[in-house]
Amino acid sequence: MPIDHTHDPAKRSWVSSANDGQSDFPIQNLPLGVFSAASGRPRCGVAIGDFILDLQLCAASGAISDGATMAAVADTNLDNLLALGGEKLTRLRHEIFALLDTDQAEAQPQLLRRMTDCVMHLPTSVRSFSDFFAGVHHAVRCAEIMGNAANPLPANYHHLPIGYNGRASTVRISGEEVKRPLGLRQKLGDAAPDFGPSQWLDFELELGCILGRGNAIGVPVRIADAPQHIAGLCLLNDWSARDLQLLEMVPLGPLNSKSVSTTISPWVITLDALAPFRGAPMARFADAPPLAAYLDDENDRASGGFTFELYAAISTPNMREAGLPPTRIVHSNARHLYWSFSQIIAHQSINGCALVTGDVIGSGTVSGPDQASYASLFELTAAGHKPIPLPNGETRAFLEDGDEISLSARCMREGFAPIGFGSCSGRIAPAPSFP
Amino acid sequence: MPIDHTHDPAKRSWVSSANDGQSDFPIQNLPLGVFSAASGRPRCGVAIGDFILDLQLCAASGAISDGATMAAVADTNLDNLLALGGEKLTRLRHEIFALLDTDQAEAQPQLLRRMTDCVMHLPTSVRSFSDFFAGVHHAVRCAEIMGNAANPLPANYHHLPIGYNGRASTVRISGEEVKRPLGLRQKLGDAAPDFGPSQWLDFELELGCILGRGNAIGVPVRIADAPQHIAGLCLLNDWSARDLQLLEMVPLGPLNSKSVSTTISPWVITLDALAPFRGAPMARFADAPPLAAYLDDENDRASGGFTFELYAAISTPNMREAGLPPTRIVHSNARHLYWSFSQIIAHQSINGCALVTGDVIGSGTVSGPDQASYASLFELTAAGHKPIPLPNGETRAFLEDGDEISLSARCMREGFAPIGFGSCSGRIAPAPSFP
Repeated sequence: MPIDHTHDPAKRSWVSSANDGQSDFPIQNLPLGVFSAASGRPRCGVAIGDFILDLQLCAASGAISDGATMAAVADTNLDNLLALGGEKLTRLRHEIFALLDTDQAEAQPQLLRRMTDCVMHLPTSVRSFSDFFAGVHHAVRCAEIMGNAANPLPANYHHLPIGYNGRASTVRISGEEVKRPLGLRQKLGDAAPDFGPSQWLDFELELGCILGRGNAIGVPVRIADAPQHIAGLCLLNDWSARDLQLLEMVPLGPLNSKSVSTTISPWVITLDALAPFRGAPMARFADAPPLAAYLDDENDRASGGFTFELYAAISTPNMREAGLPPTRIVHSNARHLYWSFSQIIAHQSINGCALVTGDVIGSGTVSGPDQASYASLFELTAAGHKPIPLPNGETRAFLEDGDEISLSARCMREGFAPIGFGSCSGRIAPAPSFP
Repeated sequence: MPIDHTHDPAKRSWVSSANDGQSDFPIQNLPLGVFSAASGRPRCGVAIGDFILDLQLCAASGAISDGATMAAVADTNLDNLLALGGEKLTRLRHEIFALLDTDQAEAQPQLLRRMTDCVMHLPTSVRSFSDFFAGVHHAVRCAEIMGNAANPLPANYHHLPIGYNGRASTVRISGEEVKRPLGLRQKLGDAAPDFGPSQWLDFELELGCILGRGNAIGVPVRIADAPQHIAGLCLLNDWSARDLQLLEMVPLGPLNSKSVSTTISPWVITLDALAPFRGAPMARFADAPPLAAYLDDENDRASGGFTFELYAAISTPNMREAGLPPTRIVHSNARHLYWSFSQIIAHQSINGCALVTGDVIGSGTVSGPDQASYASLFELTAAGHKPIPLPNGETRAFLEDGDEISLSARCMREGFAPIGFGSCSGRIAPAPSFP
């Protein structure tokens, strides 16, 4: 993923809203997504400023030269496009860049749809969703809160990226409501579980990796090849019912506490777009054991990580009624991940497990080392003991009905145009009546 | 699911191989599956004796009266058929029964394909696979082996069915090979993990539940309604790499140890066919806490369980070379499940999680209380300490390359025709070379 002319910060698009320096989607970004306008079928598109470029119309206009790419962008999701692999995605990026670049092309507004006129859909079929635990500060902080500060990390933590298979059927697109779950609850200190709506409903700020090319069953992905299997990143909110989680988690891991809903942002920010924001992943702990060869790669050590800002904001019903904007409660950074997505992909496939185009892989909660960067309410409030203050005098220990959490990101580096991810938001709806 | 004329043991089919009293597929069974003949596309069928009845041909011949059913059986898997729900499946059963019954119909061999001329496929799209821990004898036995005999069950065990989301992308049909996985291994007593092919590769004899109708996200399935969401059962082998599992399992549960492969038998044995073999589930422990209301139902208490025999057999390369047949190493029974599939479905959806037509839900290892009924090698050999003897003088602690495990089942009750599940088999292939 080299830096090339598509990363030149001086470049401008004839879509003027892309050029204001504030938009998440300048011409240097060009993320892929799936939208529909009016009641039409879902279509593949590229975000540019406040608009969506319709890729099927681009293909019809002759702007896309590769036959397989032309066919893939006519589908109702990105599966077939992402399965073509990184080289074809880079070629598409270059052709779309040329189409939108003021220096190379005339305005073609007929190829655009206004974002506010469109509904976004899941970008891929999301056959599988797995979620990891690569945020080491999150792992340590949670253990401290649980009373295990002396020895906070599981014995396996430095050996391999810990993760679990999540629930693909409840991966949803930004904007869909999250209904408060029912279940057996057991908060820290409760003597016995009881049944009812979750009282410790939480968010988790994560990165999602969208899988490009898959691997055949029985054929591990080598870590050096892993970047070729990554289409790009998105934001991911792994909504978590902590009181359900505390009861159910031993010995097989989380199930109902996490399968309520997982919200992802709609735009796949490609590895090409993220090239300026790569760097060494977080350093391994000084006392960590040597890394297994299948998880170790020279390029990954040099540039397997990402550095960009991550944010979470909350908006409560009272704040909205008072006309107050969402208020930021988390400011973290992608660099706080202990394992890279290449390591995660190498690990998840080393046993021959088939990864499938369009799969979503979560990083785990991307907390930093200090209070402002704790990326869940469980951490921010020390399991509810220290509610956080909001600008209107309210406080929050955990999420209440009507609360909305919005994740966002901003990639900034001297000499490059800033890009963003768009929003990953969801609002809590009341639990269903039951029985 | 009442007992009706389709369960009459005196009934015979014009497919004579169905009438020998030995076939898993007499006219009283009529399970659903997906097959292909020669290089044709997958088609929906019903097993009868040594043959498969082609449902699309049945529809064309006028034997299927319902329009939606006629359309669904023309698909390449059972998703749309199973989504129609139990009443339509019962009507289809009655019409197929009439078509095959010697008393009601003439032989129509043009509707049949010989099983040995066909390849079986996954019956559904298997969007999700989850696996539970409902075999309480398995849970206790494993804890004993791990040195925890005094307090073997997790604190949550009696409160809810413990389970985890498995890997749908590696659910495979009987007959496909299982490649020995690579990974970081840590056997009981090992000081540190090392990398290599799994040395503690194991099978687990389980029941699989194939989901019929799904539920909308946010709308729990009430336990009283759960049977309407179950299309039927199959056999399931949850291949498990114990040395990978022991390292990775804390705190998020199994991942690579279980995502190698999960083999299911190809025929969906419908709830109608299983009606004579229902009964009360296993009694709750005397000291168990009261059951939460969402997991408690009068009908489920009376007949939510199943009683039928379950078997596992092994065949090694040396046995096959010597002309020896597979030898039985497990004889258990479906009645050893502590939680019913209705309870599992009610639990898995109580938080609003969407279950999807064609999902596979595993019961967990169905071990009984004694050595002959331990349904995995980990239990049978006490974690490899006591290898089991085979008829040719070989022994097995865990599975070796070339070993084949075949699961089978037999439903028998006085006054009813015995039915079976067909075979669920897989053979271990050597690990891939790596790197």
